[in-house]
Amino acid sequence: MADTDRMTLKDPVFGDIAPIKFEGPDSENTLAYRYYNKDQMVLGKRMEDHLRMAVCYWHTFCWDGFDIFGAGTFDRPWQNSANDRSAADAKMAAAFEFFTKLGLPYYCFHDVDVTEASATPDELSSNFKRASDRLGTYQEETGVKLLWGTANLFSHPRYAAGGLTNPDPEVAACAVRQIRDCLEATHRLGGENYVLWGGREGYDTLLNTDLTRELENFGRFLSMVVEHKHKIGFKGKILIEPKPHEPMYHQYDFDTATIYGFLSRFGLLGEVHVNIEPNHATLSGHSFAHEVATAVSLDMMGSIDINSGNYQNGWDTDQFNLDVRDITLALVELLPSGGLDTGGFNFDAKVRRQSNDLADLFHGHIGGADALARALLAAADLIERGEINDLKEKRYSGWNGSLGKKMLAEGASLASIADQAASDSLNGKHSSGRQEYLENLVARSIK
Amino acid sequence: MADTDRMTLKDPVFGDIAPIKFEGPDSENTLAYRYYNKDQMVLGKRMEDHLRMAVCYWHTFCWDGFDIFGAGTFDRPWQNSANDRSAADAKMAAAFEFFTKLGLPYYCFHDVDVTEASATPDELSSNFKRASDRLGTYQEETGVKLLWGTANLFSHPRYAAGGLTNPDPEVAACAVRQIRDCLEATHRLGGENYVLWGGREGYDTLLNTDLTRELENFGRFLSMVVEHKHKIGFKGKILIEPKPHEPMYHQYDFDTATIYGFLSRFGLLGEVHVNIEPNHATLSGHSFAHEVATAVSLDMMGSIDINSGNYQNGWDTDQFNLDVRDITLALVELLPSGGLDTGGFNFDAKVRRQSNDLADLFHGHIGGADALARALLAAADLIERGEINDLKEKRYSGWNGSLGKKMLAEGASLASIADQAASDSLNGKHSSGRQEYLENLVARSIK
Amino acid sequence: MADTDRMTLKDPVFGDIAPIKFEGPDSENTLAYRYYNKDQMVLGKRMEDHLRMAVCYWHTFCWDGFDIFGAGTFDRPWQNSANDRSAADAKMAAAFEFFTKLGLPYYCFHDVDVTEASATPDELSSNFKRASDRLGTYQEETGVKLLWGTANLFSHPRYAAGGLTNPDPEVAACAVRQIRDCLEATHRLGGENYVLWGGREGYDTLLNTDLTRELENFGRFLSMVVEHKHKIGFKGKILIEPKPHEPMYHQYDFDTATIYGFLSRFGLLGEVHVNIEPNHATLSGHSFAHEVATAVSLDMMGSIDINSGNYQNGWDTDQFNLDVRDITLALVELLPSGGLDTGGFNFDAKVRRQSNDLADLFHGHIGGADALARALLAAADLIERGEINDLKEKRYSGWNGSLGKKMLAEGASLASIADQAASDSLNGKHSSGRQEYLENLVARSIK
Amino acid sequence: MADTDRMTLKDPVFGDIAPIKFEGPDSENTLAYRYYNKDQMVLGKRMEDHLRMAVCYWHTFCWDGFDIFGAGTFDRPWQNSANDRSAADAKMAAAFEFFTKLGLPYYCFHDVDVTEASATPDELSSNFKRASDRLGTYQEETGVKLLWGTANLFSHPRYAAGGLTNPDPEVAACAVRQIRDCLEATHRLGGENYVLWGGREGYDTLLNTDLTRELENFGRFLSMVVEHKHKIGFKGKILIEPKPHEPMYHQYDFDTATIYGFLSRFGLLGEVHVNIEPNHATLSGHSFAHEVATAVSLDMMGSIDINSGNYQNGWDTDQFNLDVRDITLALVELLPSGGLDTGGFNFDAKVRRQSNDLADLFHGHIGGADALARALLAAADLIERGEINDLKEKRYSGWNGSLGKKMLAEGASLASIADQAASDSLNGKHSSGRQEYLENLVARSIK
Ligand SMILES: [Co+2]
Ligand SMILES: [Co+2]
Ligand SMILES: [Co+2]
Ligand SMILES: [Co+2]
Ligand SMILES: [Co+2]
Ligand SMILES: [Co+2]
Ligand SMILES: [Co+2]
Ligand SMILES: [Co+2]
Repeated sequence: MADTDRMTLKDPVFGDIAPIKFEGPDSENTLAYRYYNKDQMVLGKRMEDHLRMAVCYWHTFCWDGFDIFGAGTFDRPWQNSANDRSAADAKMAAAFEFFTKLGLPYYCFHDVDVTEASATPDELSSNFKRASDRLGTYQEETGVKLLWGTANLFSHPRYAAGGLTNPDPEVAACAVRQIRDCLEATHRLGGENYVLWGGREGYDTLLNTDLTRELENFGRFLSMVVEHKHKIGFKGKILIEPKPHEPMYHQYDFDTATIYGFLSRFGLLGEVHVNIEPNHATLSGHSFAHEVATAVSLDMMGSIDINSGNYQNGWDTDQFNLDVRDITLALVELLPSGGLDTGGFNFDAKVRRQSNDLADLFHGHIGGADALARALLAAADLIERGEINDLKEKRYSGWNGSLGKKMLAEGASLASIADQAASDSLNGKHSSGRQEYLENLVARSIK
Repeated sequence: MADTDRMTLKDPVFGDIAPIKFEGPDSENTLAYRYYNKDQMVLGKRMEDHLRMAVCYWHTFCWDGFDIFGAGTFDRPWQNSANDRSAADAKMAAAFEFFTKLGLPYYCFHDVDVTEASATPDELSSNFKRASDRLGTYQEETGVKLLWGTANLFSHPRYAAGGLTNPDPEVAACAVRQIRDCLEATHRLGGENYVLWGGREGYDTLLNTDLTRELENFGRFLSMVVEHKHKIGFKGKILIEPKPHEPMYHQYDFDTATIYGFLSRFGLLGEVHVNIEPNHATLSGHSFAHEVATAVSLDMMGSIDINSGNYQNGWDTDQFNLDVRDITLALVELLPSGGLDTGGFNFDAKVRRQSNDLADLFHGHIGGADALARALLAAADLIERGEINDLKEKRYSGWNGSLGKKMLAEGASLASIADQAASDSLNGKHSSGRQEYLENLVARSIK
Repeated sequence: MADTDRMTLKDPVFGDIAPIKFEGPDSENTLAYRYYNKDQMVLGKRMEDHLRMAVCYWHTFCWDGFDIFGAGTFDRPWQNSANDRSAADAKMAAAFEFFTKLGLPYYCFHDVDVTEASATPDELSSNFKRASDRLGTYQEETGVKLLWGTANLFSHPRYAAGGLTNPDPEVAACAVRQIRDCLEATHRLGGENYVLWGGREGYDTLLNTDLTRELENFGRFLSMVVEHKHKIGFKGKILIEPKPHEPMYHQYDFDTATIYGFLSRFGLLGEVHVNIEPNHATLSGHSFAHEVATAVSLDMMGSIDINSGNYQNGWDTDQFNLDVRDITLALVELLPSGGLDTGGFNFDAKVRRQSNDLADLFHGHIGGADALARALLAAADLIERGEINDLKEKRYSGWNGSLGKKMLAEGASLASIADQAASDSLNGKHSSGRQEYLENLVARSIK
Repeated sequence: MADTDRMTLKDPVFGDIAPIKFEGPDSENTLAYRYYNKDQMVLGKRMEDHLRMAVCYWHTFCWDGFDIFGAGTFDRPWQNSANDRSAADAKMAAAFEFFTKLGLPYYCFHDVDVTEASATPDELSSNFKRASDRLGTYQEETGVKLLWGTANLFSHPRYAAGGLTNPDPEVAACAVRQIRDCLEATHRLGGENYVLWGGREGYDTLLNTDLTRELENFGRFLSMVVEHKHKIGFKGKILIEPKPHEPMYHQYDFDTATIYGFLSRFGLLGEVHVNIEPNHATLSGHSFAHEVATAVSLDMMGSIDINSGNYQNGWDTDQFNLDVRDITLALVELLPSGGLDTGGFNFDAKVRRQSNDLADLFHGHIGGADALARALLAAADLIERGEINDLKEKRYSGWNGSLGKKMLAEGASLASIADQAASDSLNGKHSSGRQEYLENLVARSIK
């Protein structure tokens, strides 16, 4: 077995760095968890089981630090410019070494992340077969599990005008094939979800786009994905990841509410859920908490690609999310519904292009894990104290009173309610929503 | 009858200004239409019948030029600070004088626009009864028609936390009463649509909001509106007006796609349509054309509040829309579907706060009308030439070929398509979307 | 003396609420400070002396909760709709009661905040004389001090096209008079700064604007303000408050860097400083920390209007700032320069329009004060540990080496440096900026 | 001479496409100019001399269609993946063929655009020497001239933390060398300007940035550029290109006003001007016209990188600008100052990634050229009619009256003006700014 073929962690890439442990908030070690204590019980569940954290393959192992204005800066030991098989194998070894050192339970991948460069769909299919077998071996060796897999339908030039929504059926057929292969591999690997991010499902100009046809094709092919999932016995969730723009001018999976309408239209409610990303939430004009609350309310919650944008740059910066307050607000919406089921918190986040040390990868993930853990503790505190819930119950208590019940009763009508408002000369008054009081509670929950 | 009671146009407020006429592009008269020639035939229909333009009551007759940082600048002859009955009557006379001078066929109003200030819901109800009777008389006298009416459920302090989605049933009941009264008045006045703009239907913070309950109430009460419409025999459309934010931090009627999902959830598809506003479109991260295309594709198109924001200010500036290219792009999406049915182009636009001359009101509307007319001519030219359509047909022609048909055939599955892609070694290629060519066609259509 | 004339706190408006005290992070009292402990020493100075917090008069005492879509919701005991003298006096009593109960050392005002409605500039001048005398009496009675005063040159309709930059000299003369009166009153009251916020100094359209002339007038009149300050012996700072837009389409005082150029052009560097507001920073595409760092670097730092926008709404929401991390990042830039001199942290923040209880005003300010205090503790910790500073020193250490020194030496030229780069075949490499490591340090500093 | 070495246009790459000619608005030929008629006299000057259009090398010849989510789509005949010498030579031949076919007078380039991939700065220097000699030959053969040259200080990994503002002097020295070489080559080639776009001059986080030092270095090295320009006798302008963000989180050359302050600080006013780009203007919260008006007012106008973003995507999309109204508004600000001097309109614009036909490159540039020409005609019409100017003169006429003159007179002071306002009881009123009237004039000027 060649050096790049090593399936065990003999020649570690991250040899300088010891496995990351919980050391508590007062530790002086910058390569330790301060808040993420996986066995600590929170709201009756272990932290690890609440958060189900995953490392993503693409940002950490495939990206070389290039951006639209400049070449890669990273020069990782496992990369070569040809992205040949030996590079792919070295990358996989490094990835599992990293997952293990972080001590996080899950990872996520695209088909092309784990394979060498492939000249044709046929080559991709066979390369991916080999790669996914190797992933299985690594999973067994390390105990790291697959949170979700996904097919990359946006990087190859053929997908410039979309994958499942491409104007050309030949391209769409290639997309279908990649999905089939990747869904089946995800199933074989015990993956807990399968994700579709519609990076190029959208349009650059309406002038060349048949919106109706593209969405109908999308609905049709998505139904086939669901049907196939059941056929092969995959028990995980099928997830769509909302994003409003970028790379396309407009993307069909704009936000959670848009996807709800789309799923409803094609009879897929209950079959397809969402993979929410904070950076995509803010790009679509929503808070992270809004997207989570919407998904919970509409019974669409799947998984979370945890990251953050910044509010000065209008593109997907995919930074590690250190905004504990923002995550707390999202968890306050998520946890009462039972939290994540098959989903997890996948670090769809990358170190900045200037952070070209291997150690930076650890700092990024440690900071992200600690922010999640700290927010979990804060949200749990808020939920256990119950003040938010109490205030809400009081605020809506009128709906349990006589007027409220009448208005919601069967047989009530516009006329019956309007008549009662008139006959009783109803003259409703506004009561304070106590927003500042509530926001202070959140601030105080963060320890 | 007191002076402010005049029901005929004896004492014109706009006496200096002659009725606005079409004089063609080369006219030197700034108070004439250059493109809006109502009887000119375009795509087989009179311009007036395509555009069905309306003047809105609120921006032009009720707003006094105040903004959040300063007091009113306008000092209109029909306004007084008490907004008493004499002011309301003077305003109505001025409004119909204005509608008539512009020679546009329609107007739109909120209940509180046409009434004096009312101390209670009971007073509002009776004041509005009187006012709507007067509107009827003016309509008869002038021939001006009602495009739509709407109840204002956002200005009164009671609606600070919403109308139909208010936490307090007593407030919601007041909202229901206003809607009932206003829907019935709209019906009596021959209005062609009834609009709900959910200005305060949304939230300022999730911390005090029961999202699920509020949306369920909203769905329930909206169903009652539809039921009542049928009961009273109103044939017009019920319209929801999307807007993402402002005045609330988040509004439930975020955009057309969100409303589609909401209507679908409450079984209201086909019963409720949308009133699209360009400024709201851009605030929600969409182009005007996108919102129109989405509504057309989902069979939700109702009416248009024509206006424009600017791209430097992140709030609803409601300017007159002079962006002929942008309107053309929207019309290219709208016209092939048959165009507006009961809807029209309502100038939900206001002159700038610095434009405190009465003449400015005319310049605003004339500019807006001419931009619409010019865009109509451009869009008609594009449609008649057929080049956009031809390119689209060619671009999607693969779906009529053997592979496309197979993929869309009953019984096709993820596996059958993937297998075919594999057995045929399909290797789809990207073809140019010709965006620049198409954009040039649009530029050239604008004469 | 009538009831509304009370100069002492006999009939408290906020009688239910006890003075706010520091009780530590574990207090269960929501009307107590958890972090703001005014006498606690931080980096060798009392917290109170670091933060110099001020309550603003306008948002808390003048605003009635109206917004552009709706009427006031607050119905404060000290307000009446006429805004007559008795209301102005009651407001002043309530304001000083509030300042005192919060135990914060400073307040800020506009001339029109403290006076009744005035029909003419003459009336305003005399009303303001009376009001400012009363402010002096209250200051003596309560010990509350004036952080800054300012003239409101944006609310009156005359200022629709600007104050000092108005096209009409008569309007500009009125603005000059208000400034003179207000600057002198600020001086008499021992105010520590005088602020100019150019709310209408800008334009709505370039088509009617002589940019060059307006900026020259602005520069000229600002020079006169500086000259007058020296003439009357005012030792405080003259401050301009940057804001990019709103209410105007474009405002001249766009951001700190723009103001630097303007001051430089008119020879006013060193004479005029900036009053930075986080919400204005973010509206102009900058972080709060960026504006502070820029002001510190350019020696323009004056004072801070502490508040926050939210990232979903594109207008000035002026919320209480609870984002401890964001404030910490700004303080890390501010404190090493010596911190605020005559400036302070003025709560230019308002409770939400739905928060119509008097208690909400306290919750808003308490939350804001605690966030500042907590950020101060975090920033002090970062500074004392010195890790950020050490990393920066190391990162730039090359400039102390032989090459760096040569490049910075007198006589170095493009050619001399380029020649050396060529002769030494210099081939510089990138080193990690360690952003994630640094961001984790900040996260960990927040206790 | 090998095929890729051809210095004459023997084997045209764009053989299918005839030279682009002016055919007038009614031409049916999509590969013709409809408005750009280079010899047509406008305001006393030939169109070509007004617009001085240039094709940029990078977007059209170097970019392969890759974006951050996907690989190149273009597969141009002159590209190979190694970017070796033969590719560089083929690219240059294609570029001059394209320039010539379009019939536009100028082009622009970065040093790395015209050279093959270079392993070291030494190699780049020598490759660039050869390439710039070849450019000279092509210029002579074709008559195409150089509008400006620039050094690419952002694509190489060494520049990840900046060029002239890099923390490491060794990197800064490499940047200086590239600038020296490129400025001298630009001079040799008769270039009319030299541009610095500070793509990486800025920061990703303040936590690792010494803002003061970086800006001082920037000022120092820029002074050296100016000194060198004079030393070598370069008569063209040195231009900085403002951009607020991207690729960096924050860029120092945020906008024109920021650059004014920077130049003022380092004594470089009059020596350095700006290269304004509409897409950068809008990313910084300004209109294109605002940036032009600011540059004209501050005497900083240099050149224009004509393009456009769209208002839905928050990054630099560099589209061809077809917004005739927006360009007209900018030209109305530009032309009265004398228009462009050494500057021109450089198409810093790229066809969409989906537009992978060679013909798309022509459609993009033709559309862009026609939009410029059409806007020029509109702006000239507005200027010749004089209505905008007249309205402005009237609006500011008070400054020529007695009060205005007194306020501007030497010796006037805050006190003298305030005293006069008081003694005359001045009570200025607002007059309409007539914005809608003016906007209609602009609409009507576009034929
Ligand atoms: Co993601
Ligand atoms: Co993302
Ligand atoms: Co509207
Ligand atoms: Co609007
Ligand atoms: Co402020
Ligand atoms: Co503000
Ligand atoms: Co550019
Ligand atoms: Co650009």
